[in-house]
Amino acid sequence: MPDSIRVFAPATVANVVCGFDVLGFAVEQPGDEVLMTLRPDPGVSIRRISGDQGRLPLDADRNTVSASVQMLLRHLGREDVGVDIELHKQMPIGSGLGSSAASTVAGLWAINELLGRPLTALELLPFAMQGEELACGAGHADNVAPALLGGFVLIRSYQPLDVVRLPVPALHCAIVYPEVEVPTRDARRLIRRTVPLQDAVTQWGNVAGLVSGLFLGDTALIGRSMQDVLVEPVRALLIPDFYQLRELALQAGAVGFGISGSGPSVFAFAPDEAAAARIVEQLRRHLAGLGVGSRGYVSAINTRGPKVWG
Amino acid sequence: MPDSIRVFAPATVANVVCGFDVLGFAVEQPGDEVLMTLRPDPGVSIRRISGDQGRLPLDADRNTVSASVQMLLRHLGREDVGVDIELHKQMPIGSGLGSSAASTVAGLWAINELLGRPLTALELLPFAMQGEELACGAGHADNVAPALLGGFVLIRSYQPLDVVRLPVPALHCAIVYPEVEVPTRDARRLIRRTVPLQDAVTQWGNVAGLVSGLFLGDTALIGRSMQDVLVEPVRALLIPDFYQLRELALQAGAVGFGISGSGPSVFAFAPDEAAAARIVEQLRRHLAGLGVGSRGYVSAINTRGPKVWG
Repeated sequence: MPDSIRVFAPATVANVVCGFDVLGFAVEQPGDEVLMTLRPDPGVSIRRISGDQGRLPLDADRNTVSASVQMLLRHLGREDVGVDIELHKQMPIGSGLGSSAASTVAGLWAINELLGRPLTALELLPFAMQGEELACGAGHADNVAPALLGGFVLIRSYQPLDVVRLPVPALHCAIVYPEVEVPTRDARRLIRRTVPLQDAVTQWGNVAGLVSGLFLGDTALIGRSMQDVLVEPVRALLIPDFYQLRELALQAGAVGFGISGSGPSVFAFAPDEAAAARIVEQLRRHLAGLGVGSRGYVSAINTRGPKVWG
Repeated sequence: MPDSIRVFAPATVANVVCGFDVLGFAVEQPGDEVLMTLRPDPGVSIRRISGDQGRLPLDADRNTVSASVQMLLRHLGREDVGVDIELHKQMPIGSGLGSSAASTVAGLWAINELLGRPLTALELLPFAMQGEELACGAGHADNVAPALLGGFVLIRSYQPLDVVRLPVPALHCAIVYPEVEVPTRDARRLIRRTVPLQDAVTQWGNVAGLVSGLFLGDTALIGRSMQDVLVEPVRALLIPDFYQLRELALQAGAVGFGISGSGPSVFAFAPDEAAAARIVEQLRRHLAGLGVGSRGYVSAINTRGPKVWG
């Protein structure tokens, strides 16, 4: 086994418009990278973080990467193991793209590889969820599950945890992050705690439609089902010109469009890479016209989860 | 073309536990039968109704079968056509098994056949929904859509109407109707108009799980997903010993168990016909012990919709 490993874990789009807290998928890029090195003495240390503008804690108990690695080592009874961690953030923090999930998953994947894979990807999930709880205040799985497993994932239930892999559609993904900040905690607080039953019925009709569309490979059905009457109307308020961005994306060929996770990133499905690139360009140009800086990503859907470089 | 036709349309199980107002499936039996005969003069008349204990109106404008046939004839500009209708109810009214839907669908299917099939099954759906509105006060499609199309049906959206056919699982159906009456209108009134978001999330996780289970042919996933945290807790109050019945069904091998439509009928999926028969027997025996009469049905899932006898 190597004594050093480099792992990339992907960004993820949670909710997928209609599937609040139960659906998510992974993209090929962006993502975060962890470099992990075994050392002779016990303990887990964060040696360096790049790309975070000094915003993430180096304290091993408070950093979600090191904290979740520590939890895993405790669970395995391997507190004799010591590792040094470098975290290279390659995507914006607080963007709604599963930034903390990507870092946490990269760290867990790295330690699991260094120890000779004692756990399966699915078995790593509860530890990644604990990392999310530390980062976001809630142990959701809709970012960490697709980051770990790749592809499109349904979290049917949390108690007990029940994860279903869904078919990956033959679509490309356009992602635009408008550089305004929407912390996940605050974005969640905006959401109403009770909802009209009629809206909930509309929502689960769409969730069922989206899942059916994935299994049937029916792109039009996927697109029709990407509607959110419950959460989007609130979260859209935090995103500059959200409905205008949607119009532009659909005009540029998007199959469906919505908020990624709690935002402010937005994403669209497109029939091919060229259309995805066009959508990214249109949306970034519109945001620039508003004086809002942005980052754009054109990506295939990630089907394999994290990547390892020896 | 014949000038007389006999059509059987199947009973249906709406909601399928977690999919309130969006899911339904048809069974092979019970069902209702319509005998329709062309006559020389215009007009739609109900000549005879059997099996309804005198509860259904013979007035052609108020009876859902004749009223929906009239609507269809108007739509087709064929008010020159005249038919006599006999309706043979072969299942209990107000049982939660889509009794009015079966009658309405049988009537619409019959007139469509007699006219040489001007409309497809899907095109008949809006007329059947208008029949439901007359019968139940709301134009739901979760009984009429599976009665028309057969199999397992998702109504993703009502505005616009979007119906998706789902795979039919290799399961048998056990149905027990406890002879207590729960009119659909009243059963709907009991339901809360607002629900906790957290419960709605649980519900659409289960809807997505059930749809995935159907596509994957994963019986265990279908069973795990058949949970309803929103509507069942209220409707169960109207069904004698509901939770005891569930326990008995699961002990007798049920894959999943719940209320059919708005009740009081309950249904279970079973791996085979013998298990379904055992479940029906257990439940009926328990109800008899409570002094509640019941009817039981063991049936395959209907995959073809209505049946025509020349």
